[in-house]
Amino acid sequence: MEQYQQLDGIFQALADPTRRAVLSRLGQGPASISDLARPFDMALPSFMKHIRFLEGSGLIQTRKSGRVRTCAIDKQRFAAVEAWLADQRALWEGRTDRLEQFVIAERDKTK
Amino acid sequence: MEQYQQLDGIFQALADPTRRAVLSRLGQGPASISDLARPFDMALPSFMKHIRFLEGSGLIQTRKSGRVRTCAIDKQRFAAVEAWLADQRALWEGRTDRLEQFVIAERDKTK
Repeated sequence: MEQYQQLDGIFQALADPTRRAVLSRLGQGPASISDLARPFDMALPSFMKHIRFLEGSGLIQTRKSGRVRTCAIDKQRFAAVEAWLADQRALWEGRTDRLEQFVIAERDKTK
Repeated sequence: MEQYQQLDGIFQALADPTRRAVLSRLGQGPASISDLARPFDMALPSFMKHIRFLEGSGLIQTRKSGRVRTCAIDKQRFAAVEAWLADQRALWEGRTDRLEQFVIAERDKTK
């Protein structure tokens, strides 16, 4: 019924302004955790929860090199969201198509 | 910093397969709560929580007529999600543009 299991975690990850801001920042290129945390008035453990949530959803990947952990966005993951939205549009437009067919059929009957 | 306050609730609403299935169904036209609930193996109070969550996010509207409550999708709400995704793409592409400008500038230096 639902071919988008991973969407639960992706949408959950997107449902927070801090996580969306981190994604927007990473959209401009990889960054270290400390650079990412700087704009937020938040204790590091709380910020790390957001990073782990994003990592768990697959929207970002992290890599540790020495003492620095670098984060990078995985743009491919957004494709699942876009595909779901496109599917919804197709459903809406399918409905319009059926309505159009009905209108055309009714018009043809009256000819 | 964040002009998409309502996105928290919208993404939260989308982070559940039952709620996404209800939205897909409503994308094909309005339906009563009992029609919407039928495909789900779920007690009505649990199903109503999902309906109220969707209504709270603005993704659907409900209207009671006699004893029947009818639900309809508000497609406009999806525009906020699409606008946010488009903004992310613009950030990614802005980065590509800057990378391109750098490559062009470096190439021109070596001419």
